[in-house]
Amino acid sequence: MTIIFDGKKLRDKILNELRLKIANFDYSKRPRLDVILVGDDPASKIYVNNKRKFADKIGIRSYVHTFNNSVSEDAIIKKIKEFNEDKSVTAILVQLPLPEHINKYKVINAISPQKDVDGLTDYNKMKLYSGGTPFVYPCTPKGVIKILDENNIKIEGKHAVVIGRSDLVGRPLAQMLLNRNATVTVCHSKTESLSNITKTADILISAVGKKLIGENMIKSGCVVIDVGIFKDENDQTTGDVDFGKVKSNADFITPVPGGVGPMTIASLMSNTLELYNKSSRL
Amino acid sequence: MTIIFDGKKLRDKILNELRLKIANFDYSKRPRLDVILVGDDPASKIYVNNKRKFADKIGIRSYVHTFNNSVSEDAIIKKIKEFNEDKSVTAILVQLPLPEHINKYKVINAISPQKDVDGLTDYNKMKLYSGGTPFVYPCTPKGVIKILDENNIKIEGKHAVVIGRSDLVGRPLAQMLLNRNATVTVCHSKTESLSNITKTADILISAVGKKLIGENMIKSGCVVIDVGIFKDENDQTTGDVDFGKVKSNADFITPVPGGVGPMTIASLMSNTLELYNKSSRL
Repeated sequence: MTIIFDGKKLRDKILNELRLKIANFDYSKRPRLDVILVGDDPASKIYVNNKRKFADKIGIRSYVHTFNNSVSEDAIIKKIKEFNEDKSVTAILVQLPLPEHINKYKVINAISPQKDVDGLTDYNKMKLYSGGTPFVYPCTPKGVIKILDENNIKIEGKHAVVIGRSDLVGRPLAQMLLNRNATVTVCHSKTESLSNITKTADILISAVGKKLIGENMIKSGCVVIDVGIFKDENDQTTGDVDFGKVKSNADFITPVPGGVGPMTIASLMSNTLELYNKSSRL
Repeated sequence: MTIIFDGKKLRDKILNELRLKIANFDYSKRPRLDVILVGDDPASKIYVNNKRKFADKIGIRSYVHTFNNSVSEDAIIKKIKEFNEDKSVTAILVQLPLPEHINKYKVINAISPQKDVDGLTDYNKMKLYSGGTPFVYPCTPKGVIKILDENNIKIEGKHAVVIGRSDLVGRPLAQMLLNRNATVTVCHSKTESLSNITKTADILISAVGKKLIGENMIKSGCVVIDVGIFKDENDQTTGDVDFGKVKSNADFITPVPGGVGPMTIASLMSNTLELYNKSSRL
């Protein structure tokens, strides 16, 4: 019997646990998430509203600071520095993408690592990549690890194959799996004979954004995690895995939508609380 | 026919090329390598002398600054900061290990990334791990890539299996191979059924420090790079690979001693010249 993961259910369980913890805090001392939104990208607006909605639900104070498209890099960095200094701000998030005239790298690294809720500053990345402990882990990879842990899927010693090497998902996820003692393979667009490698995976994670994983590409009984999400030719939201054909051969599989996606917001909220708890100990 | 790599020959070729380039500089403007040596570790003294010897040979000015075992962390960091400021210093190397009372992490990160000849500062590591370009690459991994390139061994698209995940060799080497578009697997002490994975390698790199790779663990025709080096029970210097039994099945193999080892010193010298050239362009 294949287990089909329910991302919304786990998300809601995590958010409820966070809500109960936060309910113990004084109102004025609750964790606070400050989001910087630049420009008019409609998708970014939807994402930011969604983050606010979930923050509100669980008692995290959230503020969105909007800048128009022509704002200077310096103005954004100045605002971030204010938040770094402000003890009432727990976590800072810069919604990506930024307009082209703004150096994303500089803006992200203006965030204090202790308030870097996405785990994207050099400090937090470097900790992760050298086997250390960042203040928090990036949200989507953290969500994937949470899926494995909550479903008692053993990571140590297992062969995890990650397809995709983006800075936001593939690379950090490979490191997190390695730090958890998986044997880790990273595949990508230049990989020769991909299916020979995917067939050796105990845990197969695809984070590419196109239909890639067919029924003959997995080992029977493996765990399949689909991080890809895009619209197909019929404008339907879908993932990298041919879900209908692959699922009967896997022991555990995540669908798209409703699999990894909802976990990202749960990670963002739990990262905010982690930063809060770490800052109170400083 | 198996090709057996000759590390001393390639080292000498590289050093000779460097020597010819450096011969064009005024004496007072030649690259300069400053080494910090703390304590009485006999092995460290031998390594440092060896580095000086090769630097002298090719015209790099080198200075060794020795501190006794009880020196304070602050005193070492003060010296490093002087070298950071001193325009005549091209490259700074802190010989490891350091005494236990000294924080290695702090000392290394006191080195300006532009003078970090071992590529060990956070800045240079972070560049490497996010797919960017550090000022220089760490010496041993750089030597391994050089071996592959000089022998026209294709990296892109090939399956490279790295055994070992140390901060000095395994992790940075895996990243360098990934940045060169190899499909990369990292194995380690927790890996289950290691030989199933090593048998799928086009390029197998072992960096462990014990006899690990036997004749039944490789795919016929693969490339075998042995980074391990240790003394066996008969006090003979040897590597991770059972060279006598493995070599006939490989297309290309590096021996120990005389394989990867000599390449590390070649990398150190070429890194010094790279830092020199980059600093003149600043």
